[in-house]
Amino acid sequence: MPIVKIPQHRFEERLAKLRQTLAEEKIAHFIVFNPTHIYYLTGFVHIPTERPFALIVQDSDISFFVPELEKQHVEEEVPGVAKIGSYFDYPDAKHPMKHFATFIKEELKIKDRLGAEAPGSSGRWGYEGPKLEEVLGFPVKVEAQLLTNMRIIKDSDELACIRESAMWANLAHQLLQDKTKVGLNEVEVSTQASLEASTAMGKALGIAYRPFAIGGLPVHAGYRGQIGTYSAIPHAMTRFTIFKAGDTLVTGATANVAGYYAELERTMFLGEPNAKQRKYFDIMMDAQQAAFDAFAPGKPCSIVDKAARGVFKQHGVMELVQHHTGHSIGLEGHEKPFLDHGMDDTMEPGMVFTVEPGIYDRAIGGFRHSDTVFITDDGMEMVTYYPWDIEYLTIDI
Amino acid sequence: MPIVKIPQHRFEERLAKLRQTLAEEKIAHFIVFNPTHIYYLTGFVHIPTERPFALIVQDSDISFFVPELEKQHVEEEVPGVAKIGSYFDYPDAKHPMKHFATFIKEELKIKDRLGAEAPGSSGRWGYEGPKLEEVLGFPVKVEAQLLTNMRIIKDSDELACIRESAMWANLAHQLLQDKTKVGLNEVEVSTQASLEASTAMGKALGIAYRPFAIGGLPVHAGYRGQIGTYSAIPHAMTRFTIFKAGDTLVTGATANVAGYYAELERTMFLGEPNAKQRKYFDIMMDAQQAAFDAFAPGKPCSIVDKAARGVFKQHGVMELVQHHTGHSIGLEGHEKPFLDHGMDDTMEPGMVFTVEPGIYDRAIGGFRHSDTVFITDDGMEMVTYYPWDIEYLTIDI
Repeated sequence: MPIVKIPQHRFEERLAKLRQTLAEEKIAHFIVFNPTHIYYLTGFVHIPTERPFALIVQDSDISFFVPELEKQHVEEEVPGVAKIGSYFDYPDAKHPMKHFATFIKEELKIKDRLGAEAPGSSGRWGYEGPKLEEVLGFPVKVEAQLLTNMRIIKDSDELACIRESAMWANLAHQLLQDKTKVGLNEVEVSTQASLEASTAMGKALGIAYRPFAIGGLPVHAGYRGQIGTYSAIPHAMTRFTIFKAGDTLVTGATANVAGYYAELERTMFLGEPNAKQRKYFDIMMDAQQAAFDAFAPGKPCSIVDKAARGVFKQHGVMELVQHHTGHSIGLEGHEKPFLDHGMDDTMEPGMVFTVEPGIYDRAIGGFRHSDTVFITDDGMEMVTYYPWDIEYLTIDI
Repeated sequence: MPIVKIPQHRFEERLAKLRQTLAEEKIAHFIVFNPTHIYYLTGFVHIPTERPFALIVQDSDISFFVPELEKQHVEEEVPGVAKIGSYFDYPDAKHPMKHFATFIKEELKIKDRLGAEAPGSSGRWGYEGPKLEEVLGFPVKVEAQLLTNMRIIKDSDELACIRESAMWANLAHQLLQDKTKVGLNEVEVSTQASLEASTAMGKALGIAYRPFAIGGLPVHAGYRGQIGTYSAIPHAMTRFTIFKAGDTLVTGATANVAGYYAELERTMFLGEPNAKQRKYFDIMMDAQQAAFDAFAPGKPCSIVDKAARGVFKQHGVMELVQHHTGHSIGLEGHEKPFLDHGMDDTMEPGMVFTVEPGIYDRAIGGFRHSDTVFITDDGMEMVTYYPWDIEYLTIDI
């Protein structure tokens, strides 16, 4: 059976691991505001707004503090919650953080050894409010990186989700390539491909699958404006661009599987590439291969970036390079550590990286594939598998 | 001609107004990290990542500090930029914030009277870094709400964008209603409606229109899981739900016009509503009408929420109410001030609010329309105009 959700025992394992780390820091109670961290620890997905929303992890249980409109949602979706504190809405006559202070002290009986992932609720969407310490009147130890760091090494279920994401991304990417024709616009092509892939995914995975998409589609493939010479702007924006013969295209595809993402990107051509396009494509391919070959558990992340840069230097195109080789990925599009020549963190089994060295010439186009790989005990596992070669990636016109 | 972008002179006006406010605060140089604020002041849209990205507003000019992959993008898109400082990537061998400190001191010649919208770059996506003060060695005055407050009153171009957003949202909503049939799933219906509306919008507005969409569509209409009894979870999540006869449906539709959004939501029924559905619908309609009638410039925001609550109390359904009456909207989905019984801020012409009092019964469903209104000199202007009545909103089965 394909994986459609993270099994409940994983959340219990994660909470146990968090408690162990907290104990080492002499923290008995820990408050989490970040919605991605809250999902990581409990499986609960919500729409973050200006309204304060918090998970409280204690020795033997978890509690929530939520706005009224999330109370029933938490009750139904999260098993084994000790207490749910709530307030009506933000800002209300009495600030929600004051209600939270009362809940912390009177309901949860917390008097000291309190930690939090942030000093207070996020500043999102017009929110203003005091820090936890100000409403509580006792110190709060802020541990901003603790959960981010816990999320670096993925367990086998997380890896399974990312593998499955790569498969649906592959379908969406194939549909994107199939549908891309001279004269059509990128929005229509991208959405049709994404919709077909999302529908197939929804039907294949069955009713237990939850897309976790707030508005968009669970599978997406598209160009985001990287079409023709605009492909040389690595973070271009969608423009309803019309495809024309000779365009260099840089794609992106991913799918949300239980909140996890793989990343798949390819450089394609509309019609036979010319000598310059071919040359840049080949250099980019060499750089990516050098990066693949450099992965090794126990070695620093920097060696992968240095391997790709070595190829670019050798070909004399370093002035066309605008970013490092890759980043970690999981519940968020970018995570740490990074494949960057300045990143000394050690590669460890269970880490997940994108591999995407690129070169960008504003007169010609952008050249970048991105693949997702896992660090294994003895090297790496290639997770994405869409064809890499220029023949396959050339669209007949 | 429909509005497709904010005219350049508006950005100059906004910068002038910001400089005036800064002068009152004895701030000569101001650093902005928030991507929405940067768009508001310059018209530049970018994909926020872990990489520090900043706008620096000075007496007579603006400068940027960006990662290499955004340098050409800023050069091409933003007129009249004095200086663009850049660093290769994050984290790099030397932290980008140290490069930023050098740029601030040596290139921009800033030695004092420096303000910033945040103490440092955001903590997004695995970023870690020092505060500005730590890398600069002199004090930075943090003014977290200054730009948020500037954005509350909309100018006539912003209002035109929101009016136009309401029109495309109306198209998408009509298509959503037309396509919703028993046996289909919400993802397919929502995406087809959104794609058709987005394609029409792109073609109608012409090539000057930029969708400002990173991955998704510029127009969206859908259900986000609020189907059947799940409509009683105000912030439910998409589930590939299959429509069935008797469902109560709560919709949402919006369109991105130059970054601005209106909000349109309706309660609909698949087949004739029963007596209970009809009763809740009518109460919700009465509450929304009471809110509409309460808008008055010069009065506090709270009176609108109190008017809606008055209706709910009168009908004895306050225990089914889970949120306040509405929020401001513009560049972000929610903005301040809020239509909340605890919000004393005065309503002023140029403010934009959603009006969406709702009631939620987990056994029956959720009942909420949302409309967007402008505060005018003598009351309010209704911006969304999709039919409100139960006959129109009942889908034949």
